[in-house]
Amino acid sequence: MSDMMNRILITGAAGQLGGMLREKLKGRAGVLRLSDVADLGPAGEGEEIVPCDLADGAAVKRLVEGCDGIVHLGGISVEKSFDLIEAANLRGVYNLYEAARAHGMPRIVFASSNHTIGYHEQTERLDHTAPYRPDSLYGVSKIFGEAVAQLYYDKFGQESALVRIGSCTARPENWRMLATWFSPDDFVSLIETVFRAPRLGCTMLWGASNNDHGWWDNSHADFLGWKPKDNAADFAAEIARTVPRPGPDEPVAKYQGGVFTDEPIHES
Amino acid sequence: MSDMMNRILITGAAGQLGGMLREKLKGRAGVLRLSDVADLGPAGEGEEIVPCDLADGAAVKRLVEGCDGIVHLGGISVEKSFDLIEAANLRGVYNLYEAARAHGMPRIVFASSNHTIGYHEQTERLDHTAPYRPDSLYGVSKIFGEAVAQLYYDKFGQESALVRIGSCTARPENWRMLATWFSPDDFVSLIETVFRAPRLGCTMLWGASNNDHGWWDNSHADFLGWKPKDNAADFAAEIARTVPRPGPDEPVAKYQGGVFTDEPIHES
Amino acid sequence: MSDMMNRILITGAAGQLGGMLREKLKGRAGVLRLSDVADLGPAGEGEEIVPCDLADGAAVKRLVEGCDGIVHLGGISVEKSFDLIEAANLRGVYNLYEAARAHGMPRIVFASSNHTIGYHEQTERLDHTAPYRPDSLYGVSKIFGEAVAQLYYDKFGQESALVRIGSCTARPENWRMLATWFSPDDFVSLIETVFRAPRLGCTMLWGASNNDHGWWDNSHADFLGWKPKDNAADFAAEIARTVPRPGPDEPVAKYQGGVFTDEPIHES
Amino acid sequence: MSDMMNRILITGAAGQLGGMLREKLKGRAGVLRLSDVADLGPAGEGEEIVPCDLADGAAVKRLVEGCDGIVHLGGISVEKSFDLIEAANLRGVYNLYEAARAHGMPRIVFASSNHTIGYHEQTERLDHTAPYRPDSLYGVSKIFGEAVAQLYYDKFGQESALVRIGSCTARPENWRMLATWFSPDDFVSLIETVFRAPRLGCTMLWGASNNDHGWWDNSHADFLGWKPKDNAADFAAEIARTVPRPGPDEPVAKYQGGVFTDEPIHES
Amino acid sequence: MSDMMNRILITGAAGQLGGMLREKLKGRAGVLRLSDVADLGPAGEGEEIVPCDLADGAAVKRLVEGCDGIVHLGGISVEKSFDLIEAANLRGVYNLYEAARAHGMPRIVFASSNHTIGYHEQTERLDHTAPYRPDSLYGVSKIFGEAVAQLYYDKFGQESALVRIGSCTARPENWRMLATWFSPDDFVSLIETVFRAPRLGCTMLWGASNNDHGWWDNSHADFLGWKPKDNAADFAAEIARTVPRPGPDEPVAKYQGGVFTDEPIHES
Amino acid sequence: MSDMMNRILITGAAGQLGGMLREKLKGRAGVLRLSDVADLGPAGEGEEIVPCDLADGAAVKRLVEGCDGIVHLGGISVEKSFDLIEAANLRGVYNLYEAARAHGMPRIVFASSNHTIGYHEQTERLDHTAPYRPDSLYGVSKIFGEAVAQLYYDKFGQESALVRIGSCTARPENWRMLATWFSPDDFVSLIETVFRAPRLGCTMLWGASNNDHGWWDNSHADFLGWKPKDNAADFAAEIARTVPRPGPDEPVAKYQGGVFTDEPIHES
Repeated sequence: MSDMMNRILITGAAGQLGGMLREKLKGRAGVLRLSDVADLGPAGEGEEIVPCDLADGAAVKRLVEGCDGIVHLGGISVEKSFDLIEAANLRGVYNLYEAARAHGMPRIVFASSNHTIGYHEQTERLDHTAPYRPDSLYGVSKIFGEAVAQLYYDKFGQESALVRIGSCTARPENWRMLATWFSPDDFVSLIETVFRAPRLGCTMLWGASNNDHGWWDNSHADFLGWKPKDNAADFAAEIARTVPRPGPDEPVAKYQGGVFTDEPIHES
Repeated sequence: MSDMMNRILITGAAGQLGGMLREKLKGRAGVLRLSDVADLGPAGEGEEIVPCDLADGAAVKRLVEGCDGIVHLGGISVEKSFDLIEAANLRGVYNLYEAARAHGMPRIVFASSNHTIGYHEQTERLDHTAPYRPDSLYGVSKIFGEAVAQLYYDKFGQESALVRIGSCTARPENWRMLATWFSPDDFVSLIETVFRAPRLGCTMLWGASNNDHGWWDNSHADFLGWKPKDNAADFAAEIARTVPRPGPDEPVAKYQGGVFTDEPIHES
Repeated sequence: MSDMMNRILITGAAGQLGGMLREKLKGRAGVLRLSDVADLGPAGEGEEIVPCDLADGAAVKRLVEGCDGIVHLGGISVEKSFDLIEAANLRGVYNLYEAARAHGMPRIVFASSNHTIGYHEQTERLDHTAPYRPDSLYGVSKIFGEAVAQLYYDKFGQESALVRIGSCTARPENWRMLATWFSPDDFVSLIETVFRAPRLGCTMLWGASNNDHGWWDNSHADFLGWKPKDNAADFAAEIARTVPRPGPDEPVAKYQGGVFTDEPIHES
Repeated sequence: MSDMMNRILITGAAGQLGGMLREKLKGRAGVLRLSDVADLGPAGEGEEIVPCDLADGAAVKRLVEGCDGIVHLGGISVEKSFDLIEAANLRGVYNLYEAARAHGMPRIVFASSNHTIGYHEQTERLDHTAPYRPDSLYGVSKIFGEAVAQLYYDKFGQESALVRIGSCTARPENWRMLATWFSPDDFVSLIETVFRAPRLGCTMLWGASNNDHGWWDNSHADFLGWKPKDNAADFAAEIARTVPRPGPDEPVAKYQGGVFTDEPIHES
Repeated sequence: MSDMMNRILITGAAGQLGGMLREKLKGRAGVLRLSDVADLGPAGEGEEIVPCDLADGAAVKRLVEGCDGIVHLGGISVEKSFDLIEAANLRGVYNLYEAARAHGMPRIVFASSNHTIGYHEQTERLDHTAPYRPDSLYGVSKIFGEAVAQLYYDKFGQESALVRIGSCTARPENWRMLATWFSPDDFVSLIETVFRAPRLGCTMLWGASNNDHGWWDNSHADFLGWKPKDNAADFAAEIARTVPRPGPDEPVAKYQGGVFTDEPIHES
Repeated sequence: MSDMMNRILITGAAGQLGGMLREKLKGRAGVLRLSDVADLGPAGEGEEIVPCDLADGAAVKRLVEGCDGIVHLGGISVEKSFDLIEAANLRGVYNLYEAARAHGMPRIVFASSNHTIGYHEQTERLDHTAPYRPDSLYGVSKIFGEAVAQLYYDKFGQESALVRIGSCTARPENWRMLATWFSPDDFVSLIETVFRAPRLGCTMLWGASNNDHGWWDNSHADFLGWKPKDNAADFAAEIARTVPRPGPDEPVAKYQGGVFTDEPIHES
């Protein structure tokens, strides 16, 4: 990848996920441009820091200029009030795609979410044709983002990977994550795959590792050649020993979105 | 329907579509509550006028109170800037569903649009499982609205009909409308059907008449028993005589969304 | 049909449905052989009465001899204890197919039931590939019967029509019957169609009239050319006036099997 | 149609089908250019006669010049030796598409056949995705023709209607034709529809009337708005009276291709 | 599993399959309760022996009491007369589910069979939506059992795994078993998986090892995380050397059910 | 395989692919009969050389006599004029199937091609139901061949494997071959599998190795137990280093058929 990419932008780089990718993508591109509204600390070697509020369209345009790839993690990643979600996840995504359009349409890895389909039951297997079943305003906002990406592909040819992230943590931490775990290494290999492919299109990818337990079928995207390597089942015995098994009708065992299905609507 | 409904709210009642429904629904409910940001003129018999900006959440809560059915036509209905669409079609829909939840969850007929799937070609037949292919920010905003409706159904049981309106005009006016025409009478019978059904769920309906030329399959919703009666083909000879036939690769003949696929992104 | 059939057997001829068909099929075959465990009254012209317990294999063999068509309505038609259902609907069906095999394999119209799929929701549209979702031991027994029919077709070439009857009454009587009504005249035309067709195979047919409200798709069987004529919607206004509308979550409005989903298991 | 078409070419115009269309299309275009290797008699008003062997590429080029629509009925229409089929149906179709490409790509109505799928059983319902199951070399040659049409569409934009003709006769004549009958009037309305549509693409159409008995689903092509009017069932009683009913395992009742499945390979 | 299960019931424990599981499940639960009508020998450590006739409802109720998991192998496992099958496989299954319902609904692993779909050809790939095609009364009885399990899930929430066992033998013994072999170790891992899962639902599983040759697709059940490890192909060379290769049209090579398709109906 | 096959015929044995198979199949059958119009050099041990023009029906009959397996590579394998393709790929295939029918119907491995579906985009995943989208007259000729094979299976029981070969070269040589590469060893194992299977039917197989990048799904043919072992991804780094990455809209990156989509029609 480093042969191909001069400057990759990571938005939301101060978050938990952003921090992991900042470290793991080090050296994979000429420069990593890191952005967030929160503090990112000093720029390391091969890094540049560009603070930016995604709701500010002009700022986002400047942020994107000069990048030949974007990993868009920025925005709200849990259930919040409509006002917060609107600024970061609706307006913010619109601003990002407008900025990309203004600056040569670099490929975008868009961090979408399993919460776009969170009300599907865990006994269902979903492929890329599964209907949306959002479990939160947050999930709705990610549907909005996927729709913007599709529009810019059909209208302008902007390519995107829409990664419906499961649970991107260092290791799986509970029964549900046996299915949803997405190891940081597998996320990195996905990003490399996306930036290397001759043709990407506007392709949804379920962001999960090669878990024995699985709800999601990525075979429609085999053309990309991405093969996740990690498997949450390696942690199954430990989870069985340390985490109480939920009952079959608890939200965390019933719905793919888990406890998000139990979240109320947050007041603005 | 008049036996069942005491008060139906029509938002966007000052628009072209709202005006037609205002007239045709007269007497079908105890009271028609009409709302818009534009002037609605004086209230007629069986009408009450409640001006309201959909972007104002508190005002929308008051607007919905006391209604046992909602026909939500309000908002932007053509391509506009993100700012305009955000206020009316994103925030506005959120406000409406919050208001309905606060007031007993009256059924909502949500005016969605064929522009949610506008980049599908006219040689394709779509059913309710067709993937979104928005042709405009407007189309994206309607996808957002459908997602909010689905969320409120799964989380709270709020029932909605998501009507992807084709072209609701007095008569079909061009070649594309041979497939998309949705006669006002058929829209009215759809509304009656929706408010009468024992169980509605959250059901998408293609808003088109019983046209010989058709792209859309409503059979998944046969349980409702809605049967449109009008047929754009009755006007085909007249259109052939008076409207130049487009070439096969013009947007108006190629894409289901027609000329919307040719619209630029509007500056905010 | 009368040209083709010499003797048609109707089992369960003393039941409500059997009585209707006894009358309507009069003269459509050389002889109607009527059978039941209950009293059938005296034989009319063109009729012969053969009392028979379906659980008695030898008696069923005698019953079937000489018939060139069978309309098998016999057995239990509501939820009952396993013992009652076993004798009439499990053993009885086995006996019938063995008897048909012993006597030239006359075509069989097997009265199956919507209660084989009763737990599907009323907002679902089912075609012939829908999975079974029985709502009662009765429904389970009809699945058993369909499986026996399929076995005898694959193993011996015995042809059957598996008619999943909705609600075969003189007129629709409640909201659910707007979808399930199967007029006696349409049942008769189905029987005629089945006995007239050059090739029947082992074909499932949804037993419903041409109702505006519908859950079931018979298009896989268009090869037979059966076109039901009646429409429960003709009675919709009357039902709306006289029958209280059920709430959306009452079993009668939620599940295709209606109140059968609420039946307990009956003690033997 | 006459408003739109200056000159329509009918190949195979001396055949049984060609003769019917010659008569029924009279006056629907400025000029009908009629072609065949067999004698066509004198040109009538609005007709011009151009004898042509389809195997002669240069002649076919001249034949097509100046036409703005082609109805390609020419070639072998029953099972014959490979040599005969090769000249007329393989080379002939190639020549026709090359000629159309050389002369502005007028739309082509290509007479394909049900014998492309003749080994499907009559109890199956087929839509446009059904796999090929040819019942003869003749059927194979029509698959070749459909493939050529698809190639010229994808490579050059040549539009075609691929009409899989059932049985185009004045009236249905046997039990199988209850499903396959394609009335000449319905064929004419199909041709008119195809030449009038703004966008045709490369679309397969099952060539059958609106028969109660049916195996074929044309709903994928509803965008064209073609509605056949005739119904073989109007002749069912007459057929039942005059034609012996075939047994369920006779080819004419078992396979959609009927007796073609019983044809041997013809020696060259 | 031993951490989770206090007492597992194995019915049919004296059979060939029961004997294998008795040995392999030793120590995986606090107590193995073993039951059969045939002699089971003395109870080993961690075992208890409870003879029981499955046709005796009261006895089955006592049998199930106190168990927190059931592996139901009991009943007839080859083609037999209706009388024998009725007692063991129809009444027996009903009794088992009634007993489970009376005693806290422990999870049930139900030994279903490939003979529910035995008339599908070996060139077909089946997933969980494949229609039933039973090859024997035995196969019909397993369809009955699956239907009972589904009823008790929908009505009462009773969870079951419906395992359509291929050929559970120590090693594959013929050409057909290259596809159907289900190693005892893989069956054990399936049972462990089923009892460990937070949510099971009513899930069908094809009971086959990870064979290179395969007809059955278990991907719908990936949520359980079961991964069979054995592969009949490891024995392919040996089989090719020692077992004559069947012709392509012999039942053992044509149908998935193999020679069961050749079985007659057994006299009662 | 050598135990089972006495004499295997390889047509087109002088070609690049034929040469590789000639070497790799050495010793796998009693005799390899090698045929071509081009020079094949002297016969090696276990080989016999039979020159033959596939367009000569009588010669092909002699060629096939005495063989119990055929690997049909003969014919044109790139885009050429209709005349050349007709002789070798249309008439040639017809001659081959007639010859096989005259001589006991030995199994045929037919070298079909990805160019039967070359206009599908590289972002699509295809299974055996994908519609044809030929990218050349060559591709059309392979569709013709597949249709002939299906006809001879349905009519006479002739078994065939239709292998849609991707790119059979010693190693993958460009970006597209990451998906299409079919290693010669994997082709050999496919041939062995096909000749060993008890039942083959008429089965299409995508001819590609076990590549990480993939467009094609062979799971419908799992019954054969074929498992390709090689993976083009092992060469991905080398290709990325040595071959310029194509842009996303170049034919070689856009369409599965690659540059064949850019080929003109060749003059005869």
